[in-house]
Amino acid sequence: MPAPGPSCSPLQTDVLIVGAGPAGLFQVFELGLLGLHAHVIDPLPFAGGQCIELYPDKNIYDIPALPACTGEELTERLLTQIRPFEPVFHFNQLVQSIQAKETERGFVVETQSGLRFEAQAVVLANGVGAFLPRALNAPEQADFLGKELFHGDLDAALTQFHHKHPKSTSKVLKVWIVGGEEEALRNALQGFEAHTKLDITLIHRREHLEVDPKLREAFEAALAKSPSTQVSAQVSAQVSGQAGSQETAHLTQQPSSLSFKHGQVVRLMGHAPDNSPLTSLQWVDAEGNMHEGEVDLVLVNLGLSPQLGPIAQWGAAMHKKQITVNTEDFSTAVPGLFAIGDIVTYPGKKKLILSGFHEAALASFGVAKWVFQKDRIPFEYTSASSLLQERLGVQKK
Amino acid sequence: MPAPGPSCSPLQTDVLIVGAGPAGLFQVFELGLLGLHAHVIDPLPFAGGQCIELYPDKNIYDIPALPACTGEELTERLLTQIRPFEPVFHFNQLVQSIQAKETERGFVVETQSGLRFEAQAVVLANGVGAFLPRALNAPEQADFLGKELFHGDLDAALTQFHHKHPKSTSKVLKVWIVGGEEEALRNALQGFEAHTKLDITLIHRREHLEVDPKLREAFEAALAKSPSTQVSAQVSAQVSGQAGSQETAHLTQQPSSLSFKHGQVVRLMGHAPDNSPLTSLQWVDAEGNMHEGEVDLVLVNLGLSPQLGPIAQWGAAMHKKQITVNTEDFSTAVPGLFAIGDIVTYPGKKKLILSGFHEAALASFGVAKWVFQKDRIPFEYTSASSLLQERLGVQKK
Repeated sequence: MPAPGPSCSPLQTDVLIVGAGPAGLFQVFELGLLGLHAHVIDPLPFAGGQCIELYPDKNIYDIPALPACTGEELTERLLTQIRPFEPVFHFNQLVQSIQAKETERGFVVETQSGLRFEAQAVVLANGVGAFLPRALNAPEQADFLGKELFHGDLDAALTQFHHKHPKSTSKVLKVWIVGGEEEALRNALQGFEAHTKLDITLIHRREHLEVDPKLREAFEAALAKSPSTQVSAQVSAQVSGQAGSQETAHLTQQPSSLSFKHGQVVRLMGHAPDNSPLTSLQWVDAEGNMHEGEVDLVLVNLGLSPQLGPIAQWGAAMHKKQITVNTEDFSTAVPGLFAIGDIVTYPGKKKLILSGFHEAALASFGVAKWVFQKDRIPFEYTSASSLLQERLGVQKK
Repeated sequence: MPAPGPSCSPLQTDVLIVGAGPAGLFQVFELGLLGLHAHVIDPLPFAGGQCIELYPDKNIYDIPALPACTGEELTERLLTQIRPFEPVFHFNQLVQSIQAKETERGFVVETQSGLRFEAQAVVLANGVGAFLPRALNAPEQADFLGKELFHGDLDAALTQFHHKHPKSTSKVLKVWIVGGEEEALRNALQGFEAHTKLDITLIHRREHLEVDPKLREAFEAALAKSPSTQVSAQVSAQVSGQAGSQETAHLTQQPSSLSFKHGQVVRLMGHAPDNSPLTSLQWVDAEGNMHEGEVDLVLVNLGLSPQLGPIAQWGAAMHKKQITVNTEDFSTAVPGLFAIGDIVTYPGKKKLILSGFHEAALASFGVAKWVFQKDRIPFEYTSASSLLQERLGVQKK
């Protein structure tokens, strides 16, 4: 089976929805009521967007008629509601380009990993932009990404690292984890407690770790019992990393070690001439003093960053990185391209999930007019219309 | 205790919401989040508006994250959600007048039954108007209303009728039920099956009865076994009702009778000189022929009619009996007077419950700016804000 790419025949759909957050999910529903089928793409590996990324288990209290509901529950409920319309989801997909067709109505959309769509209309519902892992403030990180620099989970990063560096399994690995929130601390503790031969340094720009007290206590207890906190501190205080590899040898049989640094990584350095692999990093402490440390693997756990991605270059009118829309139908300046949710702006706009829902409802009529080339789309109620109930699969026999 | 009236001291509130349908209920919530307390008035004897009046047990499918939900369930959920903000409801209240105060910000609102409010702001959320029982197209009905002419339930109407006419319990009552939908048919069947001494005529402007097949079959079966269908037909075919009272006498011990007429009631007539009590009515058949029939009690079961009531005379800009609003904050042409839900119009407006919810959210910011006299109201999320969580009563201890 060939890898999907621009050479494959494109996926055909009535409407392509960019973003599988609550607004994008409900857009599937509203389009489905009007007889339009949708594909949905999202850079995350699952549906729910901010709801799942930022507050999966926090309660939301202002969804009408749901007095309290977690982000995860809201997402589940929406997925249940849209099931009759059989949306096709494509996860881990970041939009590369959206091109209006020249000879007919519609768009060609390509993703960075090579999926290609032909859609009659496109609805942007990508929140404050694609949520990507927040990057280190060190431009050379691109040289190491996926080889010695990773985001997310430590175990997954170790697996990938050993795959790229088969000889690395026998040596003590110098692992730097960047971040001070839950994900960073959990990875540091997991590495210290469940692995051997890891020399782990957690580095955070603040002295205070922004986690719940229990997790902080567990981390501090681990620091206290770590066999090589001082060794590790000595290593990282050295300006050159030369001595590190000698030290590594006599530590091979030892358990993992854990240390904490208050500072910021500012530079990553690799072997000359092609800067590969990663060998050391520079970091600045709270007083502004520069330090250098040996490193094999960097795990960046700085949370997620909203990024508009290529959308910022499109023709739709932009205002402070948001898209200006016509609130009558949530059309943009590009005919056939609609936008809803946190990415749009209009007078009075509030970034409420509720508003995204309402915008999806109104946008669906704009999309239907555009796709069906009609001036007027009949408005019916789900509680009374046999057509809508048939589409929902709930029609009385 | 004196009856409430304009002479009582007025009820003070931050905001008066006119209409306890879903939009009005959610308006309580959104205002509550911003620290504003509301009283709510509604002409119906309960909360829920159209949801309860038109489809209490029909499913609604397009409330986001509630895949299916009856009007009654939606209302219950909203009442639960707004409970932390302790709204004060005043049912059976129709607005009589809304006056802007002359010397300070705010409004004086009076209801037809004499309640009086002083509110900083008013939000109109009264749907397509106050839902009142649809009236007969016969102007003289006002002479008989509550005495011989009733709306709603037959048993309640009979109770009231006998209270007004104590001697009526011993005679056969000529009851005309006007309507062809479920309520009319159920009342006709109930009268025929559960009562004696009722001579019931159901009259509907269409030959076809707009009910589910089972109810229609039950009605037709009742018609077939009615002992006096022909007698009743003769009576109503007479131009004068003189002979009716003689017939009544020998029917006293008989069970109730039931007949159906395809036509429209056009006139109600009572005893001279003061047109009381009701004695006969005129009706027109499908061919345009006028008939007259004796009658003691008329039950009008024509459903509910939206009536704008006094609102149509207000200063707010009106467009086809709807109120034109600024979609930034759902303000009307009258400063301090806001409007949301089915009563408003703007480009793209759809009469969706969902849209009423969104409008309530945006209106709350407009109301807060007006009441607090601030240019900007902070926007916070219920999932993160300790202030909002405290107002909701869910703050972590």
